[in-house]
Amino acid sequence: MKKMVYFFGKGKAEGHSKMKELLGGKGANLAEMTNIALPVPPGFTITTRVCDEYYKSGRKFPAGLSEQIDKNLAKLERVMKAKLGDNKNPLLVSVRSGAAVSMPGMMDTVLNLGLTDKSMIGLAKQTNERTAWDAYRRLINMFGDVVMGVGHERFENAMTALKKKARVKLDTDLKVSHLKELVKKYKSLYRKHTGENFPQNPKVQLRKAIEAVFSSWNTPRAVKYRQINNITGLLGTAVNVQTMVFGNMGATSGTGVCFTRNPSTGENVFYGEFLMNAQGEDVVAGIRTPLPIERLNDYLPDCYEELLAIKDILEKHYKDVQDFEFTIQNGTLYMLQTRTGKRTGLAAVRIAVEMVKEKLINKETAILRVEPSALDQLLHPQFDPKAAKKIIATGLAASPGAASGKIAFTAEDAERRAELGERVLLVRRETSPEDIGGMNAAVGILTSTGGMTSHAAVVARGMGTPCVAGCGVLHIDAKSKTMKVNGKTYNSKDWLSIDGSTGDVMADRVPTVEPELSGQFSTLMKWADSVRRMKVRTNADTPEDSKVARDFGAQGIGLCRTEHMFFEGERIWAMREMILADDKKGRLKALRKLLPIQRRDFVGIFKAMKGLPVTIRLLDPPLHEFLPQDQKAQREMARRLKISVKDVQVKVAQLHEMNPMLGHRGCRLAVTYPEIADMQVRAIIEAACAVKKKGIKVLPEIMIPLVGTVNELSFLKARARAVAAEVIARKGVRLKYMIGTMIEIPRAALTADEIAAEAEFFSFGTNDLTQMTFGYSRDDVGTFVPHYLATEILPRDPFQTLDLGGVGQLVKMGLERGRETRPDLKVGICGEHGGDPDSVKFCHNIGMDYVSCSPYRVPIARLAAAHAVLEEKN
Amino acid sequence: MKKMVYFFGKGKAEGHSKMKELLGGKGANLAEMTNIALPVPPGFTITTRVCDEYYKSGRKFPAGLSEQIDKNLAKLERVMKAKLGDNKNPLLVSVRSGAAVSMPGMMDTVLNLGLTDKSMIGLAKQTNERTAWDAYRRLINMFGDVVMGVGHERFENAMTALKKKARVKLDTDLKVSHLKELVKKYKSLYRKHTGENFPQNPKVQLRKAIEAVFSSWNTPRAVKYRQINNITGLLGTAVNVQTMVFGNMGATSGTGVCFTRNPSTGENVFYGEFLMNAQGEDVVAGIRTPLPIERLNDYLPDCYEELLAIKDILEKHYKDVQDFEFTIQNGTLYMLQTRTGKRTGLAAVRIAVEMVKEKLINKETAILRVEPSALDQLLHPQFDPKAAKKIIATGLAASPGAASGKIAFTAEDAERRAELGERVLLVRRETSPEDIGGMNAAVGILTSTGGMTSHAAVVARGMGTPCVAGCGVLHIDAKSKTMKVNGKTYNSKDWLSIDGSTGDVMADRVPTVEPELSGQFSTLMKWADSVRRMKVRTNADTPEDSKVARDFGAQGIGLCRTEHMFFEGERIWAMREMILADDKKGRLKALRKLLPIQRRDFVGIFKAMKGLPVTIRLLDPPLHEFLPQDQKAQREMARRLKISVKDVQVKVAQLHEMNPMLGHRGCRLAVTYPEIADMQVRAIIEAACAVKKKGIKVLPEIMIPLVGTVNELSFLKARARAVAAEVIARKGVRLKYMIGTMIEIPRAALTADEIAAEAEFFSFGTNDLTQMTFGYSRDDVGTFVPHYLATEILPRDPFQTLDLGGVGQLVKMGLERGRETRPDLKVGICGEHGGDPDSVKFCHNIGMDYVSCSPYRVPIARLAAAHAVLEEKN
Repeated sequence: MKKMVYFFGKGKAEGHSKMKELLGGKGANLAEMTNIALPVPPGFTITTRVCDEYYKSGRKFPAGLSEQIDKNLAKLERVMKAKLGDNKNPLLVSVRSGAAVSMPGMMDTVLNLGLTDKSMIGLAKQTNERTAWDAYRRLINMFGDVVMGVGHERFENAMTALKKKARVKLDTDLKVSHLKELVKKYKSLYRKHTGENFPQNPKVQLRKAIEAVFSSWNTPRAVKYRQINNITGLLGTAVNVQTMVFGNMGATSGTGVCFTRNPSTGENVFYGEFLMNAQGEDVVAGIRTPLPIERLNDYLPDCYEELLAIKDILEKHYKDVQDFEFTIQNGTLYMLQTRTGKRTGLAAVRIAVEMVKEKLINKETAILRVEPSALDQLLHPQFDPKAAKKIIATGLAASPGAASGKIAFTAEDAERRAELGERVLLVRRETSPEDIGGMNAAVGILTSTGGMTSHAAVVARGMGTPCVAGCGVLHIDAKSKTMKVNGKTYNSKDWLSIDGSTGDVMADRVPTVEPELSGQFSTLMKWADSVRRMKVRTNADTPEDSKVARDFGAQGIGLCRTEHMFFEGERIWAMREMILADDKKGRLKALRKLLPIQRRDFVGIFKAMKGLPVTIRLLDPPLHEFLPQDQKAQREMARRLKISVKDVQVKVAQLHEMNPMLGHRGCRLAVTYPEIADMQVRAIIEAACAVKKKGIKVLPEIMIPLVGTVNELSFLKARARAVAAEVIARKGVRLKYMIGTMIEIPRAALTADEIAAEAEFFSFGTNDLTQMTFGYSRDDVGTFVPHYLATEILPRDPFQTLDLGGVGQLVKMGLERGRETRPDLKVGICGEHGGDPDSVKFCHNIGMDYVSCSPYRVPIARLAAAHAVLEEKN
Repeated sequence: MKKMVYFFGKGKAEGHSKMKELLGGKGANLAEMTNIALPVPPGFTITTRVCDEYYKSGRKFPAGLSEQIDKNLAKLERVMKAKLGDNKNPLLVSVRSGAAVSMPGMMDTVLNLGLTDKSMIGLAKQTNERTAWDAYRRLINMFGDVVMGVGHERFENAMTALKKKARVKLDTDLKVSHLKELVKKYKSLYRKHTGENFPQNPKVQLRKAIEAVFSSWNTPRAVKYRQINNITGLLGTAVNVQTMVFGNMGATSGTGVCFTRNPSTGENVFYGEFLMNAQGEDVVAGIRTPLPIERLNDYLPDCYEELLAIKDILEKHYKDVQDFEFTIQNGTLYMLQTRTGKRTGLAAVRIAVEMVKEKLINKETAILRVEPSALDQLLHPQFDPKAAKKIIATGLAASPGAASGKIAFTAEDAERRAELGERVLLVRRETSPEDIGGMNAAVGILTSTGGMTSHAAVVARGMGTPCVAGCGVLHIDAKSKTMKVNGKTYNSKDWLSIDGSTGDVMADRVPTVEPELSGQFSTLMKWADSVRRMKVRTNADTPEDSKVARDFGAQGIGLCRTEHMFFEGERIWAMREMILADDKKGRLKALRKLLPIQRRDFVGIFKAMKGLPVTIRLLDPPLHEFLPQDQKAQREMARRLKISVKDVQVKVAQLHEMNPMLGHRGCRLAVTYPEIADMQVRAIIEAACAVKKKGIKVLPEIMIPLVGTVNELSFLKARARAVAAEVIARKGVRLKYMIGTMIEIPRAALTADEIAAEAEFFSFGTNDLTQMTFGYSRDDVGTFVPHYLATEILPRDPFQTLDLGGVGQLVKMGLERGRETRPDLKVGICGEHGGDPDSVKFCHNIGMDYVSCSPYRVPIARLAAAHAVLEEKN
């Protein structure tokens, strides 16, 4: 017969900590702690395999289980010298679930099991009447609720009524007589709702409780929890039956929860809290305020000493921070649980690095101990955790960090006021490239529409500016300069605060704390760099951004968007002049004005990146984005360009598109107006030659966007080569450069073998690729994607984490087909996914050469790339 | 050394009719006719491979070619007992192009080659002075124009000036002295514009003419012609050098063009036209109006008899209608060309069916003889016989069908305006190969000169475009953009109608009626049906359309778009009320009004399709499409729905999307507002139950659009099943129905294995799939796709013919993955491509169950599906 039950107690256990899959996390660690001689109340664990068999046989106990339970119960009674249901020395047990992966609060627990009218008397004798009656009423409540489904609130109501009648406030103020009355009331409630009496046979109690724990594995909320957290492949839950200890037996009893180190800062100090004369759920419920753990020394110094020793044993044994629970019963310390402690990003870095120095772990383990996404917290200012916050709405956490400012409803307003020294928060329905100046001037950006890859979100992340996007409950009226939310109106004089890491929007100014990048951070990143295979580049459009990204460890620019260069200051006028031109001649005239400006930009970027590769994308957005859409600006444009307002409006109308996302943009512009691309190529190559002449190494990579068929690329590449050859010959400089393409259209991925014949590198533009593969416009998904995420039609936002099932197929296919044609094809990714840890790992796994992300995500990508290598190894 | 030149003459040829790829169509058939002892003037053919090598080596003659030409020329001189350039018995030759696929008028020809000042004397001796001088001036004109690019109009002007001076009207009225003067003038024109003298070495003439023919292969108009007609994979053009014969030697000479059967109607009668005392180009140019071929009996009865015999020999030999050219020189008949005769769709069907009855061909050959797209003409509407018609002129019925459009006086104008969506009728004195783009864009073509085999007539028939030719009473002035007829002037703003079956030209727009289909048509379609494997369904939204499609042979509805049902009459108001509703309750109220209307629609369609499957797509477009966009209509809406105009505008603004194509539509609407889909499913199932109760078989297939992830489908399918089960139980009817999905999003094709777990059928929505796979918005491609087609960046419009390289991959992948999960998955296509012959063949090849197309294209799809089977067999 298979072993279905594992005993632990008296310094010896049948299981150990590596048996989590069979015994669950809690069971395995109870066994482990028993084995290393920690004071664990004895008990036994029924395996997860039994749970699986229970379901497979249609909710029946497998043959032999009852016998094994009986045998282990008898052993427990021998060890404890007590007997379940005994009226002299009754054994009480807890029955708890515990799966291989922690699912906090998802499954059920029954405490004080074994109490009956008879054993109640025994317990009262051993302790006191009050403790016994209180324990009994707790059992009936818990058993009734968890096992029989009576509903906790029914018992709660009875309790409240009694307290009112007794005129007492706290449960602890109830007298024995009150508790007796309560047990009576609870029993009758139990009978009323179950149709039977509360079971007086403790073995019946035990069997029903075990079945209830098994059943709790498949409640809708547990199923949903596993689904959300991608927990699959588990057999079921184990059941831990363990001798009860009581923290509520009086002045020398208590209970607490501790961490072996501070989980907030990572400092190597003992950290935790406790309550005297209380049970575990009292700490969790938060009704009484617990004391810091060091105060235990004041109450029970021996127990505190013992706890300190146990803390050290645990860390040395587990080699990681432990989060553990203890109970003290009449001055005796018992360990009830231990598990790996959750921690902040800051703490994770410090703990990992310090544990290496303490020789507890090696560097590889340290790297894996820090979740890449946890670094986000380290890189941006955070709100002071102690400050009061009035959350008025929540949107998408679009760009991390905390920001407070006075509301600006237009970009111009933001720019003007920021110049006067005001801290402004830009609040818009959505932003457009025209708003770039105001976005730059604002301390934070808040929009009511648009998703994680909306203009506002992308630009904000690039700038490192906090942003909350797609906050649909806001009614923003730029005309009247007001924002309404839930009946309250805010205007330009009001302060708002946004937390771009949580999506929270708060009224008033909330104080912030600046992040400090510790030495431990650099140490960890250095270790990560020595492990990873993939390079990490950045998306940067200016010398300033390039500098920031270099400081964060970027190894090149993976995406330099040239269109942003056309919006600033005087440039927009040359751009508009070009768009308004009726013929090639007119366009060439305007382009001649833009050429020196672009060249200057590129010189700046090449210098900032000295020697690192720089991928420059040729003009991508449709031309209408450069024209003003409102009448006032159109009048100004007419005045500046000395044409009629009507002419401006006609052009705006002419360029209007039903679906600009799928319209005349990217290389389609370059094919129809090749002179634009010619000018850009000329600016790039002239800048590269100029920088090279100064003795600085320069590696330009010209990237042609939105290619859907190889013919587009052949045509544009041939032109670019001709322009470049002419410039290089004229300048007399030896210059190497590459011409490649973005793979961002499904057809490009499907025909990557053909495209690679022309492209010298691929950069996957997974923003657009996601849009087209899903048929989602990132500007419009606010109407249904939040609903899709809430109802789990989409497991994750595909604009945040690469959709491996669909878009990922195309990325993999594109890479493989491209390399079939050109085995040394350089392949990277420059969509937002380049900074998402799971997506970075995918990129590593399929064999990309690099990922590129916004400057502030570069460290995250570096760490994720190292994780990918280590996870592959294991 | 490779054989580069093939000789034919004196009853024996080195080539034959199967060598079209190498010798071109003309060359192969000259060889074939020589071999079957028809009277072909001897000559030789330079292969298409030489043309290919000529281009590959940078426009140089390949080594050995000159020697082979010299050898074959010497052989020709021996056979003809004449010598090129001889002053006693000079040999004259024609130099003509001839590719494997006929490209009428696209490439160049030089006649009378070999004439010099010296050989002129020889020719004059052999014929007469007039003939010789006339031939010489023609050579200088043609050689100057075609080989040296002097420009035909320069010679024309000189001729016109001379005729004016000589006070004669016709060329034939010019005297020998005039012609001598003209030769002198032509020579000086030649010198002036080429900088050299007209070559007096006939071998130089020959070499230059051969090079000119090679060059004509890649003129823009030839490239464009191949593009329009999807001619790819050819090596180049062959060059035919053939002994000249003269149809202009006097009263017993002439020339003509014939078809073995009537190419317009298909009737088995000898059909053609001729001109006495004329050369071939006189017939084609349409300057003189030719006589019907049977009149030749009046002039040269022996020749006519011989021609009749040759006609029979040709058809028996080629087993298809032949289009041939002949010349009679001094009473001797010569065959200059034969080729498969182009014919109208009507003629193609009749000829194919009658040839089976005549046992010339079998049924399978007959099916393959009719191009599926040619059926379009048969299915096109004709003018309503009852409609008032104001006939203003009558010309030749050159290409059947009815067309109304606004006048375009130039091809460019026609192209430009058609692109903007206008229906234009191209009106020209005569057309030339340069007009090809405009002819393609026009709904009909009208010319004032030229006969049934003029350029306009031949090309129009090939395109299936209605054409009236040679309507001499029209005075067309392209410069002033006016057309005068009988004192009335028409301009670009006027509508005209032409009937290509009668030759009538009518003022204004005339209403049309549906065509009636002949018995031969049904016979052919029956044969096709017996061959094809795929079913053909139709896209129809109303009982009326369903009826038309059934009559055309549709085997079910593959796409019934329900949104069209919401626009008519009062319905739109209930729809708008639903959209304006603030909550589910309000939506349900409005939906209850829509339910009986939808149900009625479906009852009508189910009845019309009695027993055939009907695929109904649930609501697809975004809701804003149902709201009025202009202020006036918004005011009306406010009034009707008793709300403020502001409220309407707010809703319109709220529903506005940046890229509606990729927005909140299709199943995304159904997931977020499931009550809409519930109502539609209810209407479908209630209608089906009602129809079934009347004893009519009904097969509803509910199609959920725009699915991108299986979860959308699971959710909606479960709801639909619940609604259907409830209705079916209530109605007490046994009803089978299916629930499936459209595969129109790239991700759906990529994850088709998952989706097929829920979908009982797939219908590929290749319109949207093409949009998303290419990243093209159909509404916006006008800005670059025409340019892409013109420059061959795109070989074909992917919205017309399925892009096999990209979109086709996804379709194939979707089908295969779907069938992996569900081997019996029913798969069809319902995009526009379902009616495109090449796309239909692709659907067959990958194993689809059916295609669905617009009612008028059903016969085309049936025939294409049969072709697919036969082509697979071969």
